Formats: sequence, C-alpha cells, structure tokens
Amino acid sequence: MLELYFWPMACSLASRIALMEAGIDARYRMAHLWTKKVVEDDSDFRTVSPKGAVPVLVLENGERLTESAAVLQYIADLKPELGLAPPSGDPDRYRLQEWLSFIGTEIHKGFLFPTFWYKDEASLAKPRARIGQTLSVPSAHLAHREFLVGNRFTVADGYLAWALLLLRHAGVDLAQWPDLGSYLVRIQARPQVKAAIGTEMQLWKSVAA
Amino acid sequence: MLELYFWPMACSLASRIALMEAGIDARYRMAHLWTKKVVEDDSDFRTVSPKGAVPVLVLENGERLTESAAVLQYIADLKPELGLAPPSGDPDRYRLQEWLSFIGTEIHKGFLFPTFWYKDEASLAKPRARIGQTLSVPSAHLAHREFLVGNRFTVADGYLAWALLLLRHAGVDLAQWPDLGSYLVRIQARPQVKAAIGTEMQLWKSVAA
Repeated sequence: MLELYFWPMACSLASRIALMEAGIDARYRMAHLWTKKVVEDDSDFRTVSPKGAVPVLVLENGERLTESAAVLQYIADLKPELGLAPPSGDPDRYRLQEWLSFIGTEIHKGFLFPTFWYKDEASLAKPRARIGQTLSVPSAHLAHREFLVGNRFTVADGYLAWALLLLRHAGVDLAQWPDLGSYLVRIQARPQVKAAIGTEMQLWKSVAA
Repeated sequence: MLELYFWPMACSLASRIALMEAGIDARYRMAHLWTKKVVEDDSDFRTVSPKGAVPVLVLENGERLTESAAVLQYIADLKPELGLAPPSGDPDRYRLQEWLSFIGTEIHKGFLFPTFWYKDEASLAKPRARIGQTLSVPSAHLAHREFLVGNRFTVADGYLAWALLLLRHAGVDLAQWPDLGSYLVRIQARPQVKAAIGTEMQLWKSVAA
C-alpha cells in the first residue's frame, strides 16, 4: 500500500486529493513540519526524507518520491483511465507540467512559503507586492474555463485549490479575482476534494489546539 | 523553427543548453527581464507571455510554453533517442520531475530569485540561512553519482548547472560542497554546455555594459 507523509493543510493536501480522486487507498502518516518528527512514533522524519518536507510518497517498492509536481504525476499515472493527468505524448501533458511548476514556484514558494515560514514583515513586503500579478495569470486563464488543463479535473486543479485555500489564510482576499473564487467553489464541491479538505481541517484543529 | 525567449544567464539558459544538447536549431530572442521589452524590436514582451518571465518556447504551431520544468521536458521529448529525459513510464521520469521541481522551487525561487530581484538584506536573511540545508540535498545525491538521474546527462543537469553558476554570482561559495563543485566542472566541460554558457556570458557582458 502506498504511504503518504503529510502535514495537515500543507501542500501534501494536493497529494491526498489526488489519491482520493484516483480511488487509491493509502496509509497517511503525519510528519510534524516544525519539529521534523513523525507524529505516530516520534521518530526522525529526516530519516524518511532528508529534505524534511512533505509530501513524501512511499512507493510499493519502498522508494520515496518527493516534490508535489512529481508525486502528483505519479499518482495520476497509476489510474490513466481517470484522466487525472493527460497521457504522455498529449500536448496537454506539458500544460499540466507548466501549471504544476507555476503553482509550485510562483504561488507556493514565492508567496505562501515566506508567509508561513518567514512570517516577518521585512521578508513579506516584496512577495506581497507581487502576488497580484501572479494571481492574474490563473485568473485570466480560468475566466472562460472550468479546469486548468483540458476539459476535466486534473491533479493540477487539486494543487491550485490547495494554494487558493491557503492564500485566504495568508490574508489574500480572493474577492479581487472572482474567477478564482468561483473556481475554488467548483473544485471544493467535488466530493473527494471536499472529503480530503474536511479530513485535514479536522486534523489541523487537533494539532493546532 | 522553435523560438526561445531568453535573458542572458537567466534560467532560460537551461533551455538553451537542452536545445543545443538535443541538436535542435532554434531562433533565440532576447527579452529584457526588467523593462519587459523584446530587445530586437522594443515590443512588449507581455504580449508574448503575460507572465513576463523567461523561458518562453514558441512551438512549431505557434503556441507558447512557459516554465522551465515543462519547456525542458518538451525539448527532451523531441529527441527521445538522446535520453535527455527518461522515457514516460520509466520510474526515472518521476525522478527527473522531482529534481526539476526541487531546483525550481528550492534553489531558484527560494534563493536565487530573492537574491537577484529583491536584493535588500531584509528579504535575503532567511533565504541565506536556508541555502546550506537546501544544497546538502543535491550534494549528498551527487557524492557517488555522475549525473542527477540515471547514468547519463539529462535536462535536469543543465538546469542544476545553471543554478550552481548563479549561486556563485549570489555569493555562495561552492567550496563548502566539493561534490557540487566537481559536478559543475564536469557538466560545464560538455561541449554544448560550454558553448551555451559562453554565448550567454558574451551577451550578458554586452547588455550589462
């Protein structure tokens, strides 16, 4: 069985969404992002992955795959019939990779990461000044589209929905981008997405309490 | 013919390296990253790509592909016989995606971007404090390996070589990671990598003068 190391409401939520949309059972192991301990047995998370970051997907052969862009494509490819990623060779596969990269670099690492890890005003002034330009890109793209890539839900939608949820917690008012707001409502309404977010919100409350 | 919008010594250098290693002729168009003007005709680079970022690869059908992780895989897949990316379905393809993501998020967006764009000490203190932990990951990986993925040069090596070159310009002394230093020497010694870097260094001197 696959295992996913995660932290509630961290970017590993996108991997949970992908697994649930794919209908793949997995064992979920909580890794504390600040203490770098595996919660269930207090062991050292850095022995699982020296990066000390989530997601870490433990494959059936025991190998560990990290980085959302890789983990999400791996999960999608386990169930090609579901179209959670366009097949290799389809030009849309590169569009999926383009969005995974944009979300990972510009939204996640460029804004959410400094917001939640660096926290101080000095570190945040410039990322804050950039986020409007950044969000204008998916907003324009989604103005007349239901999903990021092609005409169906892909793992990139789960990743963007996670990022948009976190942006709210980072004090970004999505009302400025109504196309992003309505997109998030649509994606969150999917039963598996809703269930994944519900599970992690509950866990988040329990660890934050 | 493919067209690559680039800025000298920016991350688009990795795409130039990929094109040259693939033996693919392309038209190279310089886009000024600060003024957002296409250099040859002073036109608005944001009409080419609203992101205003390089690389932008203009495909044979006129579509534009952005984001290094997507552009590099696209180029590699044009010449599958060269192995610049492991084929789809090969487990190593996910390792390639994992490295492309790590380089793009942790090294490029997490450190090089604030260094060259934000510049002020307040924005840089925390990225500087993290870069050692970040670089320990590829350093450990490359201690007993010639390349990042499998036993041959891939587009991820061109991307990491670019990042390591820029780290030097960002004041990071690679002598602390001798395995990264010797890796960079090896990769730079490849004729196409050397030629690509030489071309962009010349262009860089001409625009910086």
